[in-house]
Amino acid sequence: MEALVNDRWRGEFELADTGAYQYTLQAWLDPFKSWREGLAKKMAAGQDVTLDRLIGAELIEKVAARASGKERRLLSRFAAALRSDDADEENPITEELAALMEKFPDRSRAATYDKVLTVEVDREKAGFGAWYEIFPRSCAGHPGKHGTLRDCEKRLPYIAAMGFDVLYLPPIHPIGRSFRKGKNNELLGDPDDVGSPWAIGSDEGGHKAIHPQLGTLEDFKQLIAKAKEWGIEIALDIAFQCTPDHPYVKEHPEWFRKRPDGSIQYAENPPKKYQDIYPLNFETENWKELWKELRSVFFFWCEQGVRLFRVDNPHTKPFPFWEWVIHEVKMKYPDALFLAEAFTRPKVMYRLAKLGFSQSYTYFAWRNTKAELTEYFTELTQTEVADFFRPNLWPNTPDILTEYLQTGGRPAFMTRLVLAATLGANYGIYGPAFELCENVAREPGSEEYLNSEKYEIRNWNFQDPASLREFIGRVNRSRRENKALQSDRSLRFHQVDNEQLICFSKQTEDRSNVILTVVNLDPRYKQSGWVELPLEEFGLNPKQPFQAHDLLTDAHYLWRGPRNYVELNPHSVPAHIFRLSHMIQ
Amino acid sequence: MEALVNDRWRGEFELADTGAYQYTLQAWLDPFKSWREGLAKKMAAGQDVTLDRLIGAELIEKVAARASGKERRLLSRFAAALRSDDADEENPITEELAALMEKFPDRSRAATYDKVLTVEVDREKAGFGAWYEIFPRSCAGHPGKHGTLRDCEKRLPYIAAMGFDVLYLPPIHPIGRSFRKGKNNELLGDPDDVGSPWAIGSDEGGHKAIHPQLGTLEDFKQLIAKAKEWGIEIALDIAFQCTPDHPYVKEHPEWFRKRPDGSIQYAENPPKKYQDIYPLNFETENWKELWKELRSVFFFWCEQGVRLFRVDNPHTKPFPFWEWVIHEVKMKYPDALFLAEAFTRPKVMYRLAKLGFSQSYTYFAWRNTKAELTEYFTELTQTEVADFFRPNLWPNTPDILTEYLQTGGRPAFMTRLVLAATLGANYGIYGPAFELCENVAREPGSEEYLNSEKYEIRNWNFQDPASLREFIGRVNRSRRENKALQSDRSLRFHQVDNEQLICFSKQTEDRSNVILTVVNLDPRYKQSGWVELPLEEFGLNPKQPFQAHDLLTDAHYLWRGPRNYVELNPHSVPAHIFRLSHMIQ
Repeated sequence: MEALVNDRWRGEFELADTGAYQYTLQAWLDPFKSWREGLAKKMAAGQDVTLDRLIGAELIEKVAARASGKERRLLSRFAAALRSDDADEENPITEELAALMEKFPDRSRAATYDKVLTVEVDREKAGFGAWYEIFPRSCAGHPGKHGTLRDCEKRLPYIAAMGFDVLYLPPIHPIGRSFRKGKNNELLGDPDDVGSPWAIGSDEGGHKAIHPQLGTLEDFKQLIAKAKEWGIEIALDIAFQCTPDHPYVKEHPEWFRKRPDGSIQYAENPPKKYQDIYPLNFETENWKELWKELRSVFFFWCEQGVRLFRVDNPHTKPFPFWEWVIHEVKMKYPDALFLAEAFTRPKVMYRLAKLGFSQSYTYFAWRNTKAELTEYFTELTQTEVADFFRPNLWPNTPDILTEYLQTGGRPAFMTRLVLAATLGANYGIYGPAFELCENVAREPGSEEYLNSEKYEIRNWNFQDPASLREFIGRVNRSRRENKALQSDRSLRFHQVDNEQLICFSKQTEDRSNVILTVVNLDPRYKQSGWVELPLEEFGLNPKQPFQAHDLLTDAHYLWRGPRNYVELNPHSVPAHIFRLSHMIQ
Repeated sequence: MEALVNDRWRGEFELADTGAYQYTLQAWLDPFKSWREGLAKKMAAGQDVTLDRLIGAELIEKVAARASGKERRLLSRFAAALRSDDADEENPITEELAALMEKFPDRSRAATYDKVLTVEVDREKAGFGAWYEIFPRSCAGHPGKHGTLRDCEKRLPYIAAMGFDVLYLPPIHPIGRSFRKGKNNELLGDPDDVGSPWAIGSDEGGHKAIHPQLGTLEDFKQLIAKAKEWGIEIALDIAFQCTPDHPYVKEHPEWFRKRPDGSIQYAENPPKKYQDIYPLNFETENWKELWKELRSVFFFWCEQGVRLFRVDNPHTKPFPFWEWVIHEVKMKYPDALFLAEAFTRPKVMYRLAKLGFSQSYTYFAWRNTKAELTEYFTELTQTEVADFFRPNLWPNTPDILTEYLQTGGRPAFMTRLVLAATLGANYGIYGPAFELCENVAREPGSEEYLNSEKYEIRNWNFQDPASLREFIGRVNRSRRENKALQSDRSLRFHQVDNEQLICFSKQTEDRSNVILTVVNLDPRYKQSGWVELPLEEFGLNPKQPFQAHDLLTDAHYLWRGPRNYVELNPHSVPAHIFRLSHMIQ
């Protein structure tokens, strides 16, 4: 460790393998070093050091007693030399002796930090990935027809062409029949309604089964294999809640809360009732059995080859459960990763991250202005939050169609996509609703989609010429080809003299890759302004012109000095993703 | 406790008596409150609450089982009412029931904060005091004559007239003869040299004895009593180190470090040797015996009536010793206070404060510019440091004659006095050197006084017309008469458009007393500028004129609005201490 100012010390270590590492800090006195320093000063001042030599000999003899073999003999010889009267007047301490003394420190009175600290090393996907969420039952390609996992396979080339490397599926388990919701979340649906995938469990099975209309376990394993061929990893949704038809209800009624009439307590948020959902009682007397069963759900899907889990509403279940189950799964499957879908208070989101979640959803969807984005992403990337919390940025989800997307048209979708993909090394979209710019809400003031796929099958028009598929492909390619965009630590915001323009950069540690993003936040009007760049921090020579290569349009600009002009029309492309460099490379 | 934003809560409690208090935090679920809230919402929505009433009855019955007597019967009656079918449709929860339920919380699954926190309540002197340091042996009033504690009594009216309420004496114990230092810290003095009071211990006794030339224990007790009549409390210096002549050396050689030749290790900082001082070995095998003996030193002086201890160099002794001994002394003498003379790194000074020291010396002596003073005192009063560290500000000490005082003449002394007395509710001076503006250093670049009282008797000219005694009296009177100056928490710095002028305020919580200090930091030239004041924070109406009454010159200024002009001539009075108020009071 290296001493800094004001009694602070700094040390570094490198960890090569994935897994959890623990460390702490220990400090001890090194009387030999103090003695050695004093001896040198006294000899330089010509003082008598007879007694000091004897003190040194004693120190060395104590250490010799802790050593053995050759080292012990060597130390004893050094001590004897210090004791001998006929020693010459040269400083008797050699580097060999100093190294030996350092090898056998006396830690009997060492002070040890009272905390054991943990570093978790995850695989690279934890830090960098582009997620795509799709409802497999909408993949049939014919209006009204229930899609299957096999149909989903057919969409892989399309998803891969857009550059996504994670395909996240809402729950694929049997859907309950009791109190099944109708279209647009109607309280009681028709008999032919497909229900919500998050209403898990029927006679056909629970969290380890596959909804029969989607296919078989074999189909699922084949989807994993095919996706892998396209460079895509499958992420499953883990939503620990049951319908009244879930096998757990019959087999383990003691895992649920009972009401005084013997019936099982459904979810409620008075006066709202969710009679199709029975929450599990994590504090049941049989909690150990319940927790083990839930752990076995993760184990089961890991055995099928899944390593990515998007966990539904983890903040409504106990912290100790997540701490335990994530640790247990990672012990067996160190490459397992967990994305927390917790839209709640910051402290709770950060707590989930600290106890084991690899990534988390964020408030990104509701941060729209330059001030909001700057403040939030400065907190996420420049404070201690960056040490434990990995943001995953979603401009939309099946639950979230923001006002900005509802009202801003196609430019709003482009703007939010570029922001998500460049502010966050991890980001995702819920498609095809996103690339097809679906923006009709169920009612004014609501963030719910009209005719939401949560409750019905949708048939999407992939031939829509307004689709953003190619634009998304360009954005994801710029992420893959530029290491600067593959982490969040280097994010810095820069001045622009226009409140509608936001400008930020990311760069690699060696500055060999510098990406500058400028986005027009106004989805209606052209905006222009002067950006102010810290060229020296980018490793650019402020006295030489440099190139700004726009990865979205392939345009090349020759810039000079820190202030440069930008102009963005939301109705063509509302953003620049520049690679900055001197021309000769 | 009251809920703030982002999962933070705040609570307050008042502590009336001095002593150490411990507290921690506990949180538990209150299912009754949740149930009550849900019930009210359901009833408002006209829902059937038959089952909810039964759930409530169960909750109440569980609590009834923990209650007894009348309360138990009451609770059971409430439960029965909820269970009865013929209950009316009114909300059955009364405030009486709610209060009873709150009285018997179920804490069986409570979460308790893993730390126990301590608040120490000290008597008022800990927070507000004006210290005066004097060498009793210089109090005889005749050149060369050794002063006594009786002579010291004669100086009390003078000290009280200046407004000091603590009289701090350097060690009053027998001074060793071996290797006794001569005048101006000469290595070997003459036989008639008086030696340094910090060279403690001779045949005549150690830390519980009084130097015979100063007088007797009876004289000392009389000094305490006489001082009390003048409103002055005596502070003793506790310096845990021994000369070779200290009785401990003969009686307990095992309390010191031995060298290989059997001699005792003196203090050294190679190549410097301090052969007149033997450091105690706090890590000796007999440390328990040693620590108890040192505790008995505090007990001894407490028994004589001393409650203020200025501890010499505590940072060179182990933290656990101070933590233990201060706790032990305070258990027996809760009004004992400890001033740490630790001029070392900030972390170490703060650590000493956290483990028990009531006050600490500071870097004030070396903070001279506006930027330095603003930064340092903002740290001390506006950050978490204020929660544990009470600064005591000394412009000079027998060891510290700063360059600013050496070169700035009388105006420099006035400037530093006003800064110490108004920035710090606790401050002190080493006199009469201070009020007589003694400013000759032993050699250029040194902060040591020439002919320092540490090594010889000085005879001071109290009739010097340049003495600052009256000026100091005015400053101390303004402190006594203005509560704003009696604590540090409200300190705020204000803008002045001149780098040589510093301006800051203190005020009482109710804003009934607002003190504004403006100081000219330049001891040579007149300086003027415009100060900018936050009138509303002072409780002043910005639309009305207000009075600035200078407590040093008794001048009254009529000010208007936030910007006002000041002009200070160092050769008359280099500072204003204003009381601000509207004229009609």
